[in-house]
Amino acid sequence: MNTTMLKEISRVFVENVPFTKEMQIKVVSLTKEEVTLTLPMSPLLVGNFVSNRLHGGVAATVLDSAGGLLCMANVYYEAQERNLNAQLEDLGKVGTIDLRIDYLNSGRGELFTATGQILRAGNRIITVQLALHNEKGIFIAAGTGTYAVVRTQNTPA
Amino acid sequence: MNTTMLKEISRVFVENVPFTKEMQIKVVSLTKEEVTLTLPMSPLLVGNFVSNRLHGGVAATVLDSAGGLLCMANVYYEAQERNLNAQLEDLGKVGTIDLRIDYLNSGRGELFTATGQILRAGNRIITVQLALHNEKGIFIAAGTGTYAVVRTQNTPA
Amino acid sequence: MNTTMLKEISRVFVENVPFTKEMQIKVVSLTKEEVTLTLPMSPLLVGNFVSNRLHGGVAATVLDSAGGLLCMANVYYEAQERNLNAQLEDLGKVGTIDLRIDYLNSGRGELFTATGQILRAGNRIITVQLALHNEKGIFIAAGTGTYAVVRTQNTPA
Amino acid sequence: MNTTMLKEISRVFVENVPFTKEMQIKVVSLTKEEVTLTLPMSPLLVGNFVSNRLHGGVAATVLDSAGGLLCMANVYYEAQERNLNAQLEDLGKVGTIDLRIDYLNSGRGELFTATGQILRAGNRIITVQLALHNEKGIFIAAGTGTYAVVRTQNTPA
Repeated sequence: MNTTMLKEISRVFVENVPFTKEMQIKVVSLTKEEVTLTLPMSPLLVGNFVSNRLHGGVAATVLDSAGGLLCMANVYYEAQERNLNAQLEDLGKVGTIDLRIDYLNSGRGELFTATGQILRAGNRIITVQLALHNEKGIFIAAGTGTYAVVRTQNTPA
Repeated sequence: MNTTMLKEISRVFVENVPFTKEMQIKVVSLTKEEVTLTLPMSPLLVGNFVSNRLHGGVAATVLDSAGGLLCMANVYYEAQERNLNAQLEDLGKVGTIDLRIDYLNSGRGELFTATGQILRAGNRIITVQLALHNEKGIFIAAGTGTYAVVRTQNTPA
Repeated sequence: MNTTMLKEISRVFVENVPFTKEMQIKVVSLTKEEVTLTLPMSPLLVGNFVSNRLHGGVAATVLDSAGGLLCMANVYYEAQERNLNAQLEDLGKVGTIDLRIDYLNSGRGELFTATGQILRAGNRIITVQLALHNEKGIFIAAGTGTYAVVRTQNTPA
Repeated sequence: MNTTMLKEISRVFVENVPFTKEMQIKVVSLTKEEVTLTLPMSPLLVGNFVSNRLHGGVAATVLDSAGGLLCMANVYYEAQERNLNAQLEDLGKVGTIDLRIDYLNSGRGELFTATGQILRAGNRIITVQLALHNEKGIFIAAGTGTYAVVRTQNTPA
């Protein structure tokens, strides 16, 4: 896979968005099948001021970001053999259809890792399994996201 | 219902949390059956830099906040006749079990309104139906949240 | 709307499927925005032999059937002005992407009513809000279903 | 673990329920962490008469059955050291709170395998990850179920 291009996708998707940039989300790895992001704990992200836990909305945000980015990488990879420039224009059309988050354990920790794996990559819809762990391996939240994608059609040169 | 107390619950739940405070979420109304919050658009909350739309994680956050707050009000109201002080200590134990968000229309707008309605209020679990609209009435996101609550037992005086 | 055609769609969708036929599911009403089905209680559908309640899988089945049928009606209606015969061939391509069911109250009753309402009808994806009540109006289960549809393109005569 | 007792739980839960008995669901294995059921294809279970695929409601039913049975086994196992007879009476109180099913690939096959794994086993709520595959290993449906359980309290002898 074109690593430089994936880095660019990552940069645009995560680091150019004010909300996720403020959260200091970083892309650790990205293939067409899997993604790993990290999120450091910070005072802004505390949801429960008594117990110093991660806000549930933050967990949802980082998991949705992981899912959306993975869909972009999947669409991009599949398009490489075809019409790459056209596909790049369509990457921004990735949209979350729906998202379910299960909050399993309280969000205590210093560095959270969000991972995503493709459950099914269709022509129009991609389903992603999502997980959030802390630095001790505690399973904080599980999720499933369904995304709409636009795969650019083959166009003869 | 004790309006002053509900205001205090609202203040603690929404405005004391850094993440939702930064979003400028406000509680418009709160009963034991329904809640309404507002969220003004701001540059921080933009998810798509091309089309100036609300970030999906922000939508999830405000809907989860609406659901959690409604559960607190429901638990508080039911406890009024019983052991109120003990119940106040247990309010912080409201926790999201799971959340599903359906993203229906793109999150364009200036002022978003999040509403929640009780689907079922059990002794240990409350299910809430959630909705996010913009100022033109466009239905941005629908959701369902399941919350764990602790209802304080009657204790003889 | 062409009522005869909708009846035919209903008949094929619900009554020709062995599993839903055995359940005696009936279509009460069907428009492009709403659907109502009924399901009579029967010994086969009991999930809990102690308390004589409806099986959760039966509730999921009737709600998914309601959602799928509503999507067919929506797609059919929108295609009327266009290429109707081609659309009829594509009706069978309606497929459930995902489904969430919240079990609110125990499934006691003699006649259950499943209703569905369009939350958003897109070109490729339709989201439906679902509800199951018993004959006393008790809210048994709420649901949300996301469906993939194929809308036949306009083709000049 | 008391294997005889688990067999009895399995028999009561799956084979005594008319709806799942008619489906010929069998319990292949059951521990406090994992469950495996099988479901043979039959004419009754066909959802799409054109393509001979498993009905989506059947998939939901077998996955929900897997989740519920796993919760019973988990609760039973944890209670062994405590008040076993009381716990047996409470096993029937396992109830599905909510269920999400993602339909990944069309349900073609001759023998389907449903598996469940504990994501989190709490005192009152258990979350289970569910999967349905056919005999070729095709991933038909993924799911997540949340269940309410009653764990019998320790009572001194």
